[in-house]
Amino acid sequence: MTDQDPLVIFTPSGKRGRFAIGTPILTAARQLGVDLDSVCGGRGICSKCQVAPGVGDFPKHGVTVAEDALSPWNEVEARYDRVRGLKKGRRLGCQATVQGDVVVDVPPESQVHRQVVRKAASTRPITMDPATRLVMVEVAEPDMHVPSGDLERVQDALAAQWEIYGARASLPVLTRLQPALRKGNWQVSVAVHAGAETPEILGVWPGLHDGGLYGLAVDLGSTTIAAHLCDLTDGHVLASSGLMNPQIRFGEDLMSRVSYAMMNPGGDAEMTTAVQAALNDLALELAKEAEIDPALIFETVIVCNPVMHHLLLGIDPVELGQAPFALATSGAVTLRAAELGLTGIAPTAQTYLLPCIAGHVGADAAAVALSEEPNVSNDLALIVDVGTNAEILLGDRSGVLACSSPTGPAFEGAQISSGQRAAPGAIERIEIDPATKEPRFRIIGCDLWSDDPAFPTDTQITGICGSGIIEAVAEMRMAGLLDASGLIGSAQATGTPRCEPTGRTHAYLIHDGSASGGPRITVTQGDIRAIQLAKSALYAGARLLMDQRGVDRVDRVVLAGAFGAHISPKHAMVLGMIPDVPLDKVQSAGNAAGHGARIALCNRAARTKIERIVGEIHKVETAIEPKFQEHFVSANAIPHATDPFPELSKIAPLPTIAFGASGAAPGEGGNRRRRRRG
Amino acid sequence: MTDQDPLVIFTPSGKRGRFAIGTPILTAARQLGVDLDSVCGGRGICSKCQVAPGVGDFPKHGVTVAEDALSPWNEVEARYDRVRGLKKGRRLGCQATVQGDVVVDVPPESQVHRQVVRKAASTRPITMDPATRLVMVEVAEPDMHVPSGDLERVQDALAAQWEIYGARASLPVLTRLQPALRKGNWQVSVAVHAGAETPEILGVWPGLHDGGLYGLAVDLGSTTIAAHLCDLTDGHVLASSGLMNPQIRFGEDLMSRVSYAMMNPGGDAEMTTAVQAALNDLALELAKEAEIDPALIFETVIVCNPVMHHLLLGIDPVELGQAPFALATSGAVTLRAAELGLTGIAPTAQTYLLPCIAGHVGADAAAVALSEEPNVSNDLALIVDVGTNAEILLGDRSGVLACSSPTGPAFEGAQISSGQRAAPGAIERIEIDPATKEPRFRIIGCDLWSDDPAFPTDTQITGICGSGIIEAVAEMRMAGLLDASGLIGSAQATGTPRCEPTGRTHAYLIHDGSASGGPRITVTQGDIRAIQLAKSALYAGARLLMDQRGVDRVDRVVLAGAFGAHISPKHAMVLGMIPDVPLDKVQSAGNAAGHGARIALCNRAARTKIERIVGEIHKVETAIEPKFQEHFVSANAIPHATDPFPELSKIAPLPTIAFGASGAAPGEGGNRRRRRRG
Repeated sequence: MTDQDPLVIFTPSGKRGRFAIGTPILTAARQLGVDLDSVCGGRGICSKCQVAPGVGDFPKHGVTVAEDALSPWNEVEARYDRVRGLKKGRRLGCQATVQGDVVVDVPPESQVHRQVVRKAASTRPITMDPATRLVMVEVAEPDMHVPSGDLERVQDALAAQWEIYGARASLPVLTRLQPALRKGNWQVSVAVHAGAETPEILGVWPGLHDGGLYGLAVDLGSTTIAAHLCDLTDGHVLASSGLMNPQIRFGEDLMSRVSYAMMNPGGDAEMTTAVQAALNDLALELAKEAEIDPALIFETVIVCNPVMHHLLLGIDPVELGQAPFALATSGAVTLRAAELGLTGIAPTAQTYLLPCIAGHVGADAAAVALSEEPNVSNDLALIVDVGTNAEILLGDRSGVLACSSPTGPAFEGAQISSGQRAAPGAIERIEIDPATKEPRFRIIGCDLWSDDPAFPTDTQITGICGSGIIEAVAEMRMAGLLDASGLIGSAQATGTPRCEPTGRTHAYLIHDGSASGGPRITVTQGDIRAIQLAKSALYAGARLLMDQRGVDRVDRVVLAGAFGAHISPKHAMVLGMIPDVPLDKVQSAGNAAGHGARIALCNRAARTKIERIVGEIHKVETAIEPKFQEHFVSANAIPHATDPFPELSKIAPLPTIAFGASGAAPGEGGNRRRRRRG
Repeated sequence: MTDQDPLVIFTPSGKRGRFAIGTPILTAARQLGVDLDSVCGGRGICSKCQVAPGVGDFPKHGVTVAEDALSPWNEVEARYDRVRGLKKGRRLGCQATVQGDVVVDVPPESQVHRQVVRKAASTRPITMDPATRLVMVEVAEPDMHVPSGDLERVQDALAAQWEIYGARASLPVLTRLQPALRKGNWQVSVAVHAGAETPEILGVWPGLHDGGLYGLAVDLGSTTIAAHLCDLTDGHVLASSGLMNPQIRFGEDLMSRVSYAMMNPGGDAEMTTAVQAALNDLALELAKEAEIDPALIFETVIVCNPVMHHLLLGIDPVELGQAPFALATSGAVTLRAAELGLTGIAPTAQTYLLPCIAGHVGADAAAVALSEEPNVSNDLALIVDVGTNAEILLGDRSGVLACSSPTGPAFEGAQISSGQRAAPGAIERIEIDPATKEPRFRIIGCDLWSDDPAFPTDTQITGICGSGIIEAVAEMRMAGLLDASGLIGSAQATGTPRCEPTGRTHAYLIHDGSASGGPRITVTQGDIRAIQLAKSALYAGARLLMDQRGVDRVDRVVLAGAFGAHISPKHAMVLGMIPDVPLDKVQSAGNAAGHGARIALCNRAARTKIERIVGEIHKVETAIEPKFQEHFVSANAIPHATDPFPELSKIAPLPTIAFGASGAAPGEGGNRRRRRRG
């Protein structure tokens, strides 16, 4: 190129260079390192390289672009327009050639490394650069006189046309290679996985494959398994779904599953089989929902806590149940999805498990760290991923601490008398009038409050979910139905017949559906105790990290977890689940672990990043810290005295109800949980 | 170390150095790069580092060694001697320390890279350096405060103690790691595979594993499958066995199997299943014979022709049946043995398939090249691997040519009226008295000739094997029972009633066992024709390579193949199977392909070498060379006129027997085979 050659300027990057007349725009973009997509490598087939050339004066760039700055539409573009329609003003970058100075805009959808914006405002967008991508190659035909295999010629083409070197192929690809090459007349599309190791061809199709490439991001929790089916070309979520972890039948919390494995020979294998089958079902269900062929799912990323991690991999979790809580492997794990029983998806599909942080702080916490990035935060952030086990991160750019806390499944609606998982019919919001002590509530699947005249009377109200029970307990406290120790008052003490005696304690009636054959939904003293244990464990974990950091308060709190999205920050603080911060400093990050999995699915550099970050996180082991126990015991009350919220001032001081020991004493409950964990 | 430090000299390497008093001999050896084995890394457990220190004058080395040049026996050595017995004069290199100048001999069995001498004299010994080896490591215990997984600490130990970096572990190892580490008190033995890619841990045992590591070298032929079970620590063959390729029921030769795949949907999968099951059976049979646990077989190396290669891998072989004979992959293939249905051996076991040379010249020919090394030969060698397909190599250090020739299964006793595979009861040697025309023979399983008075009369003589039929035809020709065109004379023309009429042709009776219920074993005109086709194809292939090389004669002939070991060179030349060379220039290389497989199993550098060599071999495609056809037709006679062997002069010229066209004319037969191939 010389000074006389036309100037080509790309926006938004601003990259510019001079190119000989006749140079295709795609070629110019590649030479300048402009982020312009192409799957077919410039053969006018894939249409991924669409650009929007400008005409007229561009004073900012110092050029004037003539009408004929690019070659006229050619037959390839005309045919593409006829068949699929080319947006007005668009050209195919591989067909339009430089004829004069030109300014070419690369629209977001034509960028390889386009960004996927997340709905939750707290986190950064994902930049697309997935480990698995689709490229098309033109392969040399076989020559008897220079015999080399079809695979070797595909490898040569990948090296020459895409700078992908030494790509391997396993049997499922090798067996399909020959017919694909011949059917495609020596042009094939290949799905190439280029992670940390040698690149591998995961799939092959004749000609241009336009059926898509998909990936699965899975948050495998103790109680629920949530997954997103993502398009690996643009990062969009096609379908999301969840199901209960079938291991629940072997034990509701982690430690009871570890116990099951210890007490029952082959018990770990049973749990492994159960969860692998569930994952496979979930993958197929998502594919069905999105109406895609499950054989086009080429990659899965899974995040989970260490016990789920080991049970998924078929590793006996017993070591995780006792000090020093040794992981079988702490690093990221890459393997074939089929090895995990995911046999319904592509046989070559890869699985990536994020690294674990420690024996009790798993790949799910690593995923939260990847999603919420406390390590680059300017203010001190407390990130709490609430599930059956709570993962807690505290930090800023000067350092991050992590621990996990055994909250148990109460926050997910389990071990609660009227509890259920978050599903239509479950009470998710509650308000109790402090004067009348009458409740109003909302259920999942209906936007109306229960005292709205339009609230459907025939609604089946089935139970109370995790966010519902938290609100219920906090509202009961604010309405003066509970004392600070968590005891429910009698009808006499509280002045409402909804406080019914049940044995030696009382329960608060939220809804009585018995007249129409439905359940009576109450909050019992046992429910209050379960929530107290859970919230104390959560709070104690957070306090422990604050102690280690040497701080008394944090700048902001991020509530994560499928369930974190639904917790009312106000009620969480009334309950004493989380340390006090101004209400506007409590954010919800939604399913941050699942989002972290999606980041690792869509951006391979994120994998290297999190593998590095987990090594830098300071791990705190709650099980051996005496201070945890102290915090746990002292966090049992609802709420503590120093109430920073004016809106909470409505809580009436409640006289301590004289009432003998009911349920477990807080200290005892704590000890029981501790023992089970050890 | 200083000039005052004692001098340590190792023999036979002659490596020497000065070491501080108290340095263990193993440490000195490692620092000098002396080839001294150790599995336990100097912990006095494995006893692999045994050395033989000398005492007295060593004028050659300029030292005198005192009695106390090494530390006295310590408790570890004494215990080892009590428990297992330490050979007189031996010390454990990790226990004996330097006290003065010393000369230390490293006996062959203590060398890591010891050589395995092969019985057949023609080839070089194998230097042990297997891809899979056993090492013992001492692993750091888990530390709750610095959490890292057990695998990660094993990786650290492998790097620090054995310079093996980044070793991966798949699920079968990961699931066994934790109990092994704890049972071994943080000392474990691991089998590490270090091929071209990232090292991988294939097995793990608590403490020192002394149960052995084994490998399988397999020569997968169209008709027979032969395998050696080898000890991967010393290269010795523990057991060898063979069985018929069960694919025979789908077609006796390669092209009939390709046809079967073409004509029967799913036919290739049937053949794949059959051969994979046979390999698994063979592996288990060998393990049983050698009395080892098949789960200790960690590596398999397989050599085979391209059609067997594709069918083994589950690749449709149809492309190999038509020009341009494109291979799905020509390079070496590494995969898990379990992917090939070898489920009876270690679940992590690796399989290495040697590279193919061309669409008709396979990994078996590559293995022959690895074993016989024509590429470093000073004289021009013709190497013929006789099987159902013959692989032919011609070359010297200036270059190597290769082709394959479709001889059909006659040389293996198939398609012969009384033919059978080489097994007890089969006639393997025959002589026919030129005067009386009476035969004498030997059968497999008995060292006596049939005319020996001690030859057991009740012997069951079951048929005639490949080497037997070749000798029979050559002897018939030499005894004047056949004319040069291959026609069997009548009883009248030959003067023996053993030449019996059968339809319009004659057959020669070798043995009549019918009186005792056994078979009548004859050589029919059809048998002669089958052998003529086979030997013409073989000869034509060799001639074609000679044409390409521009030579009329070769310096030496190497007969390889399981069957090559048993062919009598004299009879092969009488028959015109191979070009004429002096009889003492015909060598037998035994199962050279199988030996090549064993080399690749025991020496990982051999893999790199053969992957390079196959690229340098000039491939000749017999199917498209018109000269092949010419040679084929002209090679049909038995024998040609220019007979170089005085001992063959006894062949009586036989008048052409007037007898109408019997069987296929040579040219027709050749054409029929050619068509089937194309």
